[in-house]
Amino acid sequence: MESIEAALTYARNKREEHLADYKALLTIPSISTLPEHREDVLRTAQWLADHLKRFGMQQVKCIPTAGHPIVYGEWLKAPGKPVVLVYGHYDVQPVDPIEEWESEPFSAEVRGNYIYARGASDMKGQLLAQLKAMESLSTHGDFPVNVKYLLEGEEEIGSPHLSGFIETHKELLACDIVLNCDAGIHAPDGPSIVYALRGLAYFEVEVQGPAKDLHSGMFGGSIRNPIHVLCEVIAGMHDAEGRVTLPGFYNAVRPLDEEERRELARFPYSNQEWFNLTGASGLYGESGYSTLERVGARPTLEINGIWGGFTGTGAKTVLPARASAKLSMRLVADQKPESIRGMLQRYLEEHMPAGVQWSLQEHSHGPGAIMNRNSPYMKTALAALKATFGVDPIFRREGGSVPVVGIMQELLGVDSIMLGFALPDDGIHGPNERQYLPNFFKGIETYIRFMAGLASMQQ
Amino acid sequence: MESIEAALTYARNKREEHLADYKALLTIPSISTLPEHREDVLRTAQWLADHLKRFGMQQVKCIPTAGHPIVYGEWLKAPGKPVVLVYGHYDVQPVDPIEEWESEPFSAEVRGNYIYARGASDMKGQLLAQLKAMESLSTHGDFPVNVKYLLEGEEEIGSPHLSGFIETHKELLACDIVLNCDAGIHAPDGPSIVYALRGLAYFEVEVQGPAKDLHSGMFGGSIRNPIHVLCEVIAGMHDAEGRVTLPGFYNAVRPLDEEERRELARFPYSNQEWFNLTGASGLYGESGYSTLERVGARPTLEINGIWGGFTGTGAKTVLPARASAKLSMRLVADQKPESIRGMLQRYLEEHMPAGVQWSLQEHSHGPGAIMNRNSPYMKTALAALKATFGVDPIFRREGGSVPVVGIMQELLGVDSIMLGFALPDDGIHGPNERQYLPNFFKGIETYIRFMAGLASMQQ
Repeated sequence: MESIEAALTYARNKREEHLADYKALLTIPSISTLPEHREDVLRTAQWLADHLKRFGMQQVKCIPTAGHPIVYGEWLKAPGKPVVLVYGHYDVQPVDPIEEWESEPFSAEVRGNYIYARGASDMKGQLLAQLKAMESLSTHGDFPVNVKYLLEGEEEIGSPHLSGFIETHKELLACDIVLNCDAGIHAPDGPSIVYALRGLAYFEVEVQGPAKDLHSGMFGGSIRNPIHVLCEVIAGMHDAEGRVTLPGFYNAVRPLDEEERRELARFPYSNQEWFNLTGASGLYGESGYSTLERVGARPTLEINGIWGGFTGTGAKTVLPARASAKLSMRLVADQKPESIRGMLQRYLEEHMPAGVQWSLQEHSHGPGAIMNRNSPYMKTALAALKATFGVDPIFRREGGSVPVVGIMQELLGVDSIMLGFALPDDGIHGPNERQYLPNFFKGIETYIRFMAGLASMQQ
Repeated sequence: MESIEAALTYARNKREEHLADYKALLTIPSISTLPEHREDVLRTAQWLADHLKRFGMQQVKCIPTAGHPIVYGEWLKAPGKPVVLVYGHYDVQPVDPIEEWESEPFSAEVRGNYIYARGASDMKGQLLAQLKAMESLSTHGDFPVNVKYLLEGEEEIGSPHLSGFIETHKELLACDIVLNCDAGIHAPDGPSIVYALRGLAYFEVEVQGPAKDLHSGMFGGSIRNPIHVLCEVIAGMHDAEGRVTLPGFYNAVRPLDEEERRELARFPYSNQEWFNLTGASGLYGESGYSTLERVGARPTLEINGIWGGFTGTGAKTVLPARASAKLSMRLVADQKPESIRGMLQRYLEEHMPAGVQWSLQEHSHGPGAIMNRNSPYMKTALAALKATFGVDPIFRREGGSVPVVGIMQELLGVDSIMLGFALPDDGIHGPNERQYLPNFFKGIETYIRFMAGLASMQQ
């Protein structure tokens, strides 16, 4: 505990220097999707590698991939203590629409309590806060736990080389727990922790009726219209209770127990806020579940796009040859994307009528994930948040997908603790992205407490 | 009867000259939609006006409209005899794709039994056959009936000025019956006559869910997806028997009696031919009706187009803001397009769920039409066809719409006799449009018999 206090004191005394380093990191435009920024991405990797070395990481290297490099580093001199793999990414999104930015995206301007820059929140701020926590801990003796770093430069383009890298570096990356810093809390003073993520299975269905577009007067009403067929099949995918009708769809879904529902209900939520966020004029979803349960704890099926026939201005009287839809399911833990594909296939086989041909194509998939809320790692994270923010953190399930969490579970067999300090209104991926600076510093303190806490947790 | 025989003899002796005039008419590229052919359209109108004068029409003029002129002419010196208004159009479609033509579209090349040219079948061939019938009749005394001509130059662009012209020239155009030459038969030796046309009511529906496209992970399953809503509403528009479910949709529809069904069943039809025509692998439609009854005698509803959300390549996980569909009903006689709009509006009001907004827009509409199969005019047409072709003509209902027929019924209060000699495989609107020359000449003979027959029909 003495070393924790010392590290916290160091961190508090060094805020000016930490902010200066934060600004330095933000000024490198590491846009991974734009070839002209390839050198900037590389420079950022080197900047981080240097930083890791500075506070004592060993074996630090920028490992090339077919895309942008992965930064690795380790410190493994705490025998008997857990090995923590810190995951982060150092690449950022493009800055369009540039004209909507109030300051230059890579100038890292501080205005009031915020620092504005592309990557400030997603996720250089979270990543550097973790590094500064380690730097703070390094000033007073050995690290409390074993640490490895895995920092990628391709998260914003879908991590095309991450799975392959992990697959071929399983031993190098072996660990007890992942600290995933690419995360956030729900309000400036509202610490929360995401313990479940939804997976994804994304498909495209095409229905073919006649060989070519036909005159709807000459042939309308005598053969199947592929748009009708597609609409009927889609309409049948949900029942009157808002449940997905694919046979077996819910078989693997873990039911919510009362305790978890109470926990989820602690999250500050109002219908009005949901209306403001979405612009929708009403709520709808699976019967028997709250809005937050629907998006966090239940699998869903959405049609993401549909097209067929004449879609121009005015009127054209065609009976179209084809109609297509993109549809995706958000899956919860234990639902296997491969099984879902089979269920969809069977549903379509049973519901497509004679007189049309159809095809099913899979675009992508990834598993959902759920972490044990009662594990010692999770308890350590909660304790670190509470000690820093002074209030009890809230557990959250997130409706979106963070593929790396499922990949780590699958390939390394370990859970991830999602601990980061981005806020919902930080404007990530948009203009004027920002980070709330007080929470950059609270982040450093939370990471100090988390890393130190892991050394003394009850296994 | 003597004058009929004389006219027929004249027509048979003049085939070479009539073909030469046909070619001359076909070489003028009267493409109404292309501004660069404006002079050609005008030249065609003048060519026809000259022709009308040549065989004795009076008051012949090219009457300007806001678009292309209408050619008018009359001969009204047969007191007590019917007044026949001959309708035709002298404009043609564009020639794209030009590279697929085997001879220049306006060279009017004869190959075997066919003459190839844009407009050969649609409808300069039919129009000129009628004019040549009149020329033939003119050579042996007065015309047997009173005649007026209304020849428009804008049919291929939707007749934008025809209704207005008829509306303001009701007296000029007053008549007992319309002879609409823009028609065809079902086979080279298969005389048939269309006595019913379907009307049209064309709409566009838009459903709005959230204010903008949302992340399907964060919000999927918690609010209405406008694509789902649109699909459900569309799926509900037909019942399991293939019937349209809009309340009242069939109220005004005349039932088919056994006699009419027997008549329609005379038309040569096979499922295999329907498959060949459409490329569909099965039939589908309203229970209890044959394919020809479905497209000819029953109203239908088709979705002509649908779109919403992400329709590009690959995967994008959006919960879309909007989804839209174009839908149209083919109506049969007595169904009022205005009432249909009300039915659709009420159906949507009843079936659109809370949580979305929607709008309904009408693109166009026109009434269906049915002609009395037992009128003396119709009997005269049947007799003329039988005398010329040597076999009993078949009655047909057509699934498409010919707006001018409904317009004439509405504004002038008269039926149209659809008498023309185009064939289904003439390639109208496509490359290598052609006319079967033996039927151009039989057309002349049929029109001679029809016009002469009207003079002696039993009212």
